[in-house]
Amino acid sequence: MADVESRVAALEALLAGGSSLDSFQKNYSVITDALEGEGLASPSSIRAGVDMLFIVLCGVLVFFMQCGFIMLSVGAVRRKNAKNIILYILLDATFGAVAWFFFGWAFAYGPNPNASSKFIGAGWFVTYNLPKEEYVNWFFQYTFAATATTIISGSIIERTKVIAYIIYAMLVTGFVYPVVAHWVWSCDGWLSACLDSPLLEIGLVDLAGCGVVHMVGGIGGAVGAAIVGPRIGRYDASGRALAMPGHSAPFMALGVMILWFGWYGFNTGSLLGIVGQETMVPHVAIVTTLGAAGGTLGCLSYSLLVEKHWNVVNALNGALAGLVSITAACASVELWAGLVIGYIGGWIFSGCSWLLTYMKIDDPLEAAAMHGGCGMWGLWAVGWFASPSLMGNDRACGVFYGGCGGWLLGVQTIGIVVIAAWVIVLMAVIFGALHLMGILRVAPDEEKAGMDHSYHGGDAYPKDQQVADGEPFTTTTLESPAGKVKEAEGTEA
Amino acid sequence: MADVESRVAALEALLAGGSSLDSFQKNYSVITDALEGEGLASPSSIRAGVDMLFIVLCGVLVFFMQCGFIMLSVGAVRRKNAKNIILYILLDATFGAVAWFFFGWAFAYGPNPNASSKFIGAGWFVTYNLPKEEYVNWFFQYTFAATATTIISGSIIERTKVIAYIIYAMLVTGFVYPVVAHWVWSCDGWLSACLDSPLLEIGLVDLAGCGVVHMVGGIGGAVGAAIVGPRIGRYDASGRALAMPGHSAPFMALGVMILWFGWYGFNTGSLLGIVGQETMVPHVAIVTTLGAAGGTLGCLSYSLLVEKHWNVVNALNGALAGLVSITAACASVELWAGLVIGYIGGWIFSGCSWLLTYMKIDDPLEAAAMHGGCGMWGLWAVGWFASPSLMGNDRACGVFYGGCGGWLLGVQTIGIVVIAAWVIVLMAVIFGALHLMGILRVAPDEEKAGMDHSYHGGDAYPKDQQVADGEPFTTTTLESPAGKVKEAEGTEA
Amino acid sequence: MADVESRVAALEALLAGGSSLDSFQKNYSVITDALEGEGLASPSSIRAGVDMLFIVLCGVLVFFMQCGFIMLSVGAVRRKNAKNIILYILLDATFGAVAWFFFGWAFAYGPNPNASSKFIGAGWFVTYNLPKEEYVNWFFQYTFAATATTIISGSIIERTKVIAYIIYAMLVTGFVYPVVAHWVWSCDGWLSACLDSPLLEIGLVDLAGCGVVHMVGGIGGAVGAAIVGPRIGRYDASGRALAMPGHSAPFMALGVMILWFGWYGFNTGSLLGIVGQETMVPHVAIVTTLGAAGGTLGCLSYSLLVEKHWNVVNALNGALAGLVSITAACASVELWAGLVIGYIGGWIFSGCSWLLTYMKIDDPLEAAAMHGGCGMWGLWAVGWFASPSLMGNDRACGVFYGGCGGWLLGVQTIGIVVIAAWVIVLMAVIFGALHLMGILRVAPDEEKAGMDHSYHGGDAYPKDQQVADGEPFTTTTLESPAGKVKEAEGTEA
Repeated sequence: MADVESRVAALEALLAGGSSLDSFQKNYSVITDALEGEGLASPSSIRAGVDMLFIVLCGVLVFFMQCGFIMLSVGAVRRKNAKNIILYILLDATFGAVAWFFFGWAFAYGPNPNASSKFIGAGWFVTYNLPKEEYVNWFFQYTFAATATTIISGSIIERTKVIAYIIYAMLVTGFVYPVVAHWVWSCDGWLSACLDSPLLEIGLVDLAGCGVVHMVGGIGGAVGAAIVGPRIGRYDASGRALAMPGHSAPFMALGVMILWFGWYGFNTGSLLGIVGQETMVPHVAIVTTLGAAGGTLGCLSYSLLVEKHWNVVNALNGALAGLVSITAACASVELWAGLVIGYIGGWIFSGCSWLLTYMKIDDPLEAAAMHGGCGMWGLWAVGWFASPSLMGNDRACGVFYGGCGGWLLGVQTIGIVVIAAWVIVLMAVIFGALHLMGILRVAPDEEKAGMDHSYHGGDAYPKDQQVADGEPFTTTTLESPAGKVKEAEGTEA
Repeated sequence: MADVESRVAALEALLAGGSSLDSFQKNYSVITDALEGEGLASPSSIRAGVDMLFIVLCGVLVFFMQCGFIMLSVGAVRRKNAKNIILYILLDATFGAVAWFFFGWAFAYGPNPNASSKFIGAGWFVTYNLPKEEYVNWFFQYTFAATATTIISGSIIERTKVIAYIIYAMLVTGFVYPVVAHWVWSCDGWLSACLDSPLLEIGLVDLAGCGVVHMVGGIGGAVGAAIVGPRIGRYDASGRALAMPGHSAPFMALGVMILWFGWYGFNTGSLLGIVGQETMVPHVAIVTTLGAAGGTLGCLSYSLLVEKHWNVVNALNGALAGLVSITAACASVELWAGLVIGYIGGWIFSGCSWLLTYMKIDDPLEAAAMHGGCGMWGLWAVGWFASPSLMGNDRACGVFYGGCGGWLLGVQTIGIVVIAAWVIVLMAVIFGALHLMGILRVAPDEEKAGMDHSYHGGDAYPKDQQVADGEPFTTTTLESPAGKVKEAEGTEA
Repeated sequence: MADVESRVAALEALLAGGSSLDSFQKNYSVITDALEGEGLASPSSIRAGVDMLFIVLCGVLVFFMQCGFIMLSVGAVRRKNAKNIILYILLDATFGAVAWFFFGWAFAYGPNPNASSKFIGAGWFVTYNLPKEEYVNWFFQYTFAATATTIISGSIIERTKVIAYIIYAMLVTGFVYPVVAHWVWSCDGWLSACLDSPLLEIGLVDLAGCGVVHMVGGIGGAVGAAIVGPRIGRYDASGRALAMPGHSAPFMALGVMILWFGWYGFNTGSLLGIVGQETMVPHVAIVTTLGAAGGTLGCLSYSLLVEKHWNVVNALNGALAGLVSITAACASVELWAGLVIGYIGGWIFSGCSWLLTYMKIDDPLEAAAMHGGCGMWGLWAVGWFASPSLMGNDRACGVFYGGCGGWLLGVQTIGIVVIAAWVIVLMAVIFGALHLMGILRVAPDEEKAGMDHSYHGGDAYPKDQQVADGEPFTTTTLESPAGKVKEAEGTEA
C-alpha cells in the first residue's frame, strides 16, 4: 500500500511540476525523440530549421555583396576597364568556389589529426566525407572567402593580367584566407575564442571578420598594388598624384547600397544562429546601421574640412568605412559605440587613403585603405569599446570601461600584428613570383588602350548599329580590329 | 484505497487528455520553462526566433528600398544633378539614423508618463534604458522613418542646398514623422487601433503606412516643392510646363524593381510576426503584387488614352502608385480588391500629377502625387473595401460591403485630414524658416550649372584620361563637339 | 489492489518512456492542440511559420529575378530599344499577375473533378473559394510563371509589337505554362512524381523547373524568334551573321548577379519547406553555386578555344547557363556533380547559340540557347547523375551510377520530348496567329528608328536641358564651356 501510495505521489509530483528538472527533460525529450523518429516535427527539428534558414539566408545576402562589389568597382574604374573588373569579380566567385571546393574549406575547417591543428585544417578535401551538418557552414563560409578575394581585385585593377588574377584568386580563396579563418573561427585555431584554453584566456574577438576577411583582402590589396605598381599617368613627372576618377558615380552608389544591404547578412549571420539570440540579432543590425552612419559623417567631415566640398564619392566610401569598422565589434559593443567606431573609421579611411597615395601605392578602389585600414581599426576598437555586460568575461572588456585591464586590447593587438604579417609575407611571395614570371602586369600600350579593348574584344558600352538594307555597316563591333580601336579611342575613350 | 484509486484515475485522465486545459498548459509550461532555464530551446524561444528573423529580414528589405530610391531618383533627375540626389538619400539614411537614435524613436515609441502620451512619446532618448526586447522595433521602425524622409527628397531635388536638406531631413526623421507614427502605430496614440478605447471604437487602419509614411513624405514634398519653387526652365514665359525628363530610364526601372522587391518586406513585415499569421503573410504578398499590377494598368490606361503612346516611365510610376495605394489596406481587403485599389491608384497618381503641374508645384520625382495622392487614396480605400471577415469587428468594414455603416470610412477620413494638416503646418514652418533664412535654394547659376558641378566637385560620369608618359593630358569627352550633339539628337534623342 | 498497482505501473511506464509511441504522441498532441485552441503557439504552428517564412521569402527572391532580367536585357539590347524591353518585362510581371489571378493558377493547380485532371487543372478561377492554405503556393508559383514568360521576351525583343507581346504574355502565363506546371508539379499531373502511380513508377524529376520554367521559356522564345524573323541587319547579304552587341555590359553584369542571387530562392524554395530538410537546403545552395561556377568555366573555355579572347559577356552568360543546367537536379545529385553539369551546360549553351545563329534564328538575349538548350540538358542530366542515396528509390538513379538501369533517364527523356512538343505546337499557333493577323512585327522604319522612338516617346537616356528664363532652349552638355571642363579636371578628374 505504502509502496503504491508513494509511487502515486511521485507521479503526481512529476506532473505537477514538483519533480526535478531532469525528470521533466526526460519526458520532454522522450516525446520529441519519438516524434522525430516518426518523421514529425519536434521542437529541436523546428529550431534547426529556423537557424538553418537564418544562416543560409545570410549567406545568400553575403553572396549578393559580390554584385555590390561589381557595381562599385565598375563605377570606380575608368570606362575602358569596365568589362575587365566585371570579369575579375565574376572569377572570384567562380574560381573561388572551385578552390574552396577542392581545398580552401579543408584548410579552414577540415579536421586535422596532427599537431599542427592550431595552425591549419586538413580534412574534407573535395568535400569528401563531409558530414551533411557541415554543408551550411561550407556555403556560409564560402561567401566570406569570396568576399576577401574580391576586395583585393579593387587594388590591382586596370593593369593586371587575367592569368595572374586567376592564379592569385585561387591561392587567396584556397590558402591565404582559409588559414586565417582557421586561426580565428575554427575552434581548433590558436586565436580562437572557443579554444579550450584561448590566448590570454580570452581569444580574438572578430565576429564577422575585420581581421579574417577585411584585413586579408585590404592588406593583400596593398601588397598587390605596391608590387604591380601605379597605373600609367597616376603620378606626374614631379611625383604628384593625379586624380583618375571612375566613370560612373551612380554605379558606385548602387554598389555601396547593395553592400550595405548585404552587410546585414554578413554581421548578423556571423552569430551563426538566431534561436536564443533573438535580441542580439537586432542589436547587431542597429550597431551596423550606426556604424555606417558614423563612417559617412566621418568622411563628410574630412571632405568639408580638407577638400572644402561635399564629396559624394567620399560620403559613399564613408558608409563602407563605417561598415568595415564595426564588423568585428558589432555584438560586443553598446549601440552608441557603433556611431563612434564608425565615425573614427571614416577618418582612418581618409588618413590611410592619403598615406597610401603618398607612398605611391596606387589603389583604384582604395580597397587597402578601406578594408585594410578600417579592418585593423575595427579589430582594435573591440579592445577599446567592448562592453563588460556583453562580453561576460571579467578579464575581457574594453579599456574605455576600465576594470578589465588591457588584456582584451592585448589580444586584439596580437591578432592584428600576426594576421598582417601573414598576409604581407604570403601575398608578397605570390605577387612577387607572378611579377618575376612576367605574368603580372599588362604591356603599357594595352593598359593605355584599356583592358576591355586589349583583352575583352571591345568597349563595355558598344555603340548602336544604324543600318539600312543594303547599306554597309558603320559601327564598332564587339570584336575589334586594330584600326577600329583607334577610331573608338578618338571619339569616345 | 479509494483515495489512491481516485488519485490514479486523476493521473490517467490527465495523461489521456481528459483533464482540463489548465492542467495541460501547466505541465507544458513547466517543462518548457525548465528547458529555457537550462538554456535549451523551448517552443516559445523558437517562436521568438522565427518572428525575430521575419521582422529583422523585412527591416533589411525596407532598408534596401533606400537603394531603390537612389536609383529611381538618379534616373529621374538630369545628369547634372545625379551625384546630388545620391548624397541626399545617403544623408537620409545616415543623418536619419542619428536623429532616430537621439530623439526620433523616443518621440515615436518612448514611454510617456504625461497626459500628452496620446500625442507624443517621451522616453528612451539616445536609446538610454531601452529594453533589449525593443531593439527589433527600433531597427524596423528606423527603416520606415528613413523611407518617409527619402520620399521628400524627390520633390525638392535639383535646386535645394545641402545644408537645408540636412536640417529638414533630421527634423522629419526626428520629429514630424515620429509624432504621426506615435498617433497611429504606438498603442498609446490617439488614432491607434490598439488603444483601450480607440477612435469611434475602431481606430485608424494603416497597416504599413499609407498615412504614417507615404502621406508624411508625399505631402511634405508638396509643401517643400511649393516653397522652394519650380526649377529654372520648368515653365516657359507663358506658364506652360516643359518636360524635363530624367537622364536614364534604365536606372528608373532598376529603382522601381528594387522598391517593389523591398515592398514585400514593407507590407508583410508590418504584420510584426509570422507565427500564427501564416496565411496572412502570403495574403499580404498577393495583394501587394496585384496592387502593383493594377497600378501599372491604371497608368498605362491613362497614357494610352491621354498621351496616346506606351509611356514606359509612366508604367513604372504606375507600379509604384499601385504599391503605395494598397499599403494601408493589404491585410484588410480581399485579393481582388488589390487589383481594383491599385488600378484606381494609377489614375489618382496621374490626376494628382497633372494637378500639381497645373498648380506650378514642380516635383521632379512626382513624389507628391505618388506618395501624397496615392497615400491618401490608400488610407481612404480601407474605408471602402475592408472585408468584414478580415476585420472581425462588426462596426468596421468597407462601405462597399454595406452592413457596417460608414464608421470605418469616417475614421479613415479623420486620419487623412489630421495627418495632412499636421504635415502641411509643420513642413510649411520648416521650409518657410529655411527659405526666410536664405539657405533653402541654390543660386540660379549654380542651378543651371548643375548641383554636381556647383557643390560636388564635378560630373557624376567623369571622362577617362588618356595619358602617355610625359605627354600632356588630353581629356576627350563622351559628348563630342557641337556638330556631334546635333547629330546625336537626330539619331538617338 | 493488483488493479491499482498495474495502473500505476502503466502510468510510470508512460512517463518513463516505456510506453508505446502512440501514447506519447497522443499526450503531446493533446497538449499542443489545447494550446492552439487557446491561440498560443504550438510547435506545429511554429513549424508552419518557419516554412511559410522560407517559401514566401524564396518567392520574393524569385520575384526579384524580374529585376535581374530587366537589367540583363536592357544591357543586352541596343540603346534605342532600352525602354521597350523594360516595358515588356514589367508587363510580364503585371499582366502575368492578372492572367495568373483569373485563370493561370486555376489551370495549373485548381482541383479538376473530370477525367482530364491528369492533363489540366480546373478550379479556383479568379481565386474563387481558394483556401487560405493555398495562398502561399499561389504567390510562389506566380513568381515562377512570370519567370517563364519573361524568358521569352529576350528572344523576340527589338522588333515585336507591344500588343503582340501583351497577348502572348497573357497566354503563356495563363495557359501554356500552367499546363506544364500541372503535369509536373501538381500531384494530379501525369508526369508528377507524387502521383499514386507515377510514370514508370518514378515520375519526372524537375525540382525547380528546367522543364517547367526554362524549357517553356526558352523553346517558346526560339519559336517566337523563328516566326518573327531576324532583326534588320542581323545577317548580311551573304547570310553571314553580324554582331549586334548590347549597349551596356555593366547592366548585363548587374542583371546576371541579381539573377544568381534570386536563383538561391528559386532552387532552395522549390523544396517547399525547410523544417525536416535542414541539410537539403544548403545542399541545394552549394550545388547551385557550383553549377554557376562550372557554367562560367565552360563558357570561358569555349571563348578561349574558339574566340581566342576572354569574352566577358560569355562568362556572364556562362554563369546563367550553369544555373539553368542544375535547376532540375540540384537536390538529386552530389555536390561535385553540380560542377560537372554546369561545365557541360556552358558548352551546351555555346553550341546551341552557334546552332541557332546558323539556323538564322535571331535571339538578342540568346534566351533560347540559354533556357531552352540548358533547360533540356538540365532535365536530362538528372537521368545521368542522380545519386542513389539522394533518390531513395532503387529504380531511380543516374546511369552514371549503374545499378538502377536507365529508367530514370527514360522518364526524363520522355519529359523533354513531350514538354518540347507542347511548347513548340502551342507557341507556333500563338505566334503564327499573331503573324497572320499582322500584329506581330513592327514596320521596318520603326525598327530602324528603334522601339523607344517609335512607340515610347523617345530615348531611354534623354539629354539635359539648359534653359534660362525667356531664352530659347539650347540643349547643351552637362559640361559647361571649355573653361569649366578644364577646371573640373583640375579639381576632381
